[in-house]
Amino acid sequence: MRATPAYVPGEQPKAGQRVIKLNTNENPYPPSPRVLEAMQRGLVESLRLYPDPDATALRAKAALVYGIPIDAILVGNGSDELLSLLVRALVDPGGIVAYPVPTYSLYRTLVALQGARAVEVPYPADWSIPPALADAGAPLTFLCNPNAPSGTLVPIADVAELARRVAGVLVVDEAYVDFAADHALRLLADHSNVVVLRTLSKSFSLAGLRVGLAFGHPELTHGLRTVKDSYNVNRMTQLGAEAALADLPAMQANVRRIVATRVVLTAELEQMGFAVPTSEANFVLARRPGRSMAPVARALAARGILVRHFAVPGLDDALRITVGTDDEITALLAALREICPS
Amino acid sequence: MRATPAYVPGEQPKAGQRVIKLNTNENPYPPSPRVLEAMQRGLVESLRLYPDPDATALRAKAALVYGIPIDAILVGNGSDELLSLLVRALVDPGGIVAYPVPTYSLYRTLVALQGARAVEVPYPADWSIPPALADAGAPLTFLCNPNAPSGTLVPIADVAELARRVAGVLVVDEAYVDFAADHALRLLADHSNVVVLRTLSKSFSLAGLRVGLAFGHPELTHGLRTVKDSYNVNRMTQLGAEAALADLPAMQANVRRIVATRVVLTAELEQMGFAVPTSEANFVLARRPGRSMAPVARALAARGILVRHFAVPGLDDALRITVGTDDEITALLAALREICPS
Repeated sequence: MRATPAYVPGEQPKAGQRVIKLNTNENPYPPSPRVLEAMQRGLVESLRLYPDPDATALRAKAALVYGIPIDAILVGNGSDELLSLLVRALVDPGGIVAYPVPTYSLYRTLVALQGARAVEVPYPADWSIPPALADAGAPLTFLCNPNAPSGTLVPIADVAELARRVAGVLVVDEAYVDFAADHALRLLADHSNVVVLRTLSKSFSLAGLRVGLAFGHPELTHGLRTVKDSYNVNRMTQLGAEAALADLPAMQANVRRIVATRVVLTAELEQMGFAVPTSEANFVLARRPGRSMAPVARALAARGILVRHFAVPGLDDALRITVGTDDEITALLAALREICPS
Repeated sequence: MRATPAYVPGEQPKAGQRVIKLNTNENPYPPSPRVLEAMQRGLVESLRLYPDPDATALRAKAALVYGIPIDAILVGNGSDELLSLLVRALVDPGGIVAYPVPTYSLYRTLVALQGARAVEVPYPADWSIPPALADAGAPLTFLCNPNAPSGTLVPIADVAELARRVAGVLVVDEAYVDFAADHALRLLADHSNVVVLRTLSKSFSLAGLRVGLAFGHPELTHGLRTVKDSYNVNRMTQLGAEAALADLPAMQANVRRIVATRVVLTAELEQMGFAVPTSEANFVLARRPGRSMAPVARALAARGILVRHFAVPGLDDALRITVGTDDEITALLAALREICPS
């Protein structure tokens, strides 16, 4: 067994625990009722048969919704699976993968699992793309946009410039992009080295379903298809995801509520003395420069409020807080005012 | 993109096609009604939250049912995912993986994807374990038991002997074992290098759900856990699988019907002049030595009956036929008598 650093997911409370869960960027609002209806219908049909290995109906729906050809789309068991496939398909052991940091910590885990080397280029203070990122000459570069855990969005023109400069494939991980003002899908037409990843876990309120979408040049998506497990996305998930994409207004209504709450949360945190980068995601990074937030996270947890604290250099003075319902955020702010007076 | 030979799954008919589907070893009977009830209940709860990354409730149920400690159990998105994790965790690029052939063709694909080398040792005519298999010195050896596509079971005493002789880990892939008279779970107590794989796709009639179970030494399963995607098994699947394991009698009743049909199918095929190795699976391998069965498979398909033909040396003279319902098998035999007179 080779030694590898494991990705540590945010804590998932056990059944029965009553908590305000603002630690893993789940959507506080339910998915479209059409998702449940479609899955109910699917249950009546048979589970005894294998799913469509190509998720054809779901990909056709995604093609329609996003205006991307169906053969440029691949469906994954969550975008985590798509990230893993990209590393395994594009990087040889000993090869390199580049990405700015801090960012989604799974990238580091996947690179280590592949026996490859991570070139981690620090973000500047304004969270713009570090110019050195493209100089790594990596066959694979990740850009999480909006970035986690900062919530910041780099302009799509800058992403296009990065796509021109990198040596290999640029993966734009848009897990949070439905909460942002812009996205990179339009880059696909002119940049055959760009892959855009989406997930239904956040804006579509379907973290429990596991659906990721990869958009990229058909040669790339075909290559990834040969690496994936044949039956990677089950029957119920394909049905539910197709129904979710068929009801964009439900998703967009939830996004609008979350964005409104984010504005309030950000203003209140700033008033309390936190530095908060402008978030275009469904979470914010609240920072008290130079002051460890570990005790604050523990004190919140003791009150039944889970937020994410990363005990790593550069992030120890920050909390990543998912934008919950207004009531949840009111409770969080009240607790923070008690625990952490300015 | 590295060039890799893709695993080719059996054909899945599109919605609306009326076929007798005897080509991918699905169960012709529905799963326990409890599975649907549990998933219905799950739908009413929320899909917006991430699933339990450790599938704790499902593993606890499996521990109870199979008498194996919970920390010796890992759940996969189908046993295909578990096979992939085993190769990635245990074999370095350039390393070797050994298995007897012909067998489940995914092994070859996974070895190639890892940049490793397959040592393929031919089965003798009686489908017993080839003595040379253990001599490969491989860190990972696969044994599909009952084997696909032969359907044959090697005695568990011989599997134990193989476990003692191999240099590394022995994975006993028991996808079809519920249709057989014996199994290898009891080897786990004395052989820390044995991993037993199970799936809910065949005997439990849940191919559409994607659930695999790995049983092995806690050190091994812990190592695999660090390689897997955190949220590899979705909420609905965990609920459905737990309910399936809670209703073994439903599965066993289906197995008994299939085994009874297998006896008839085998006898009829032999009467028609086919050689049929003794199957302990939910399929049989029907062979006309030296005569290509490709035209027969095509003629059956033209009549709406799908069986599996492998256009590879050594299997070209055989058809792999899934044991369907009695009516399906009656239709198959009638068509075969027309197409392929003895």
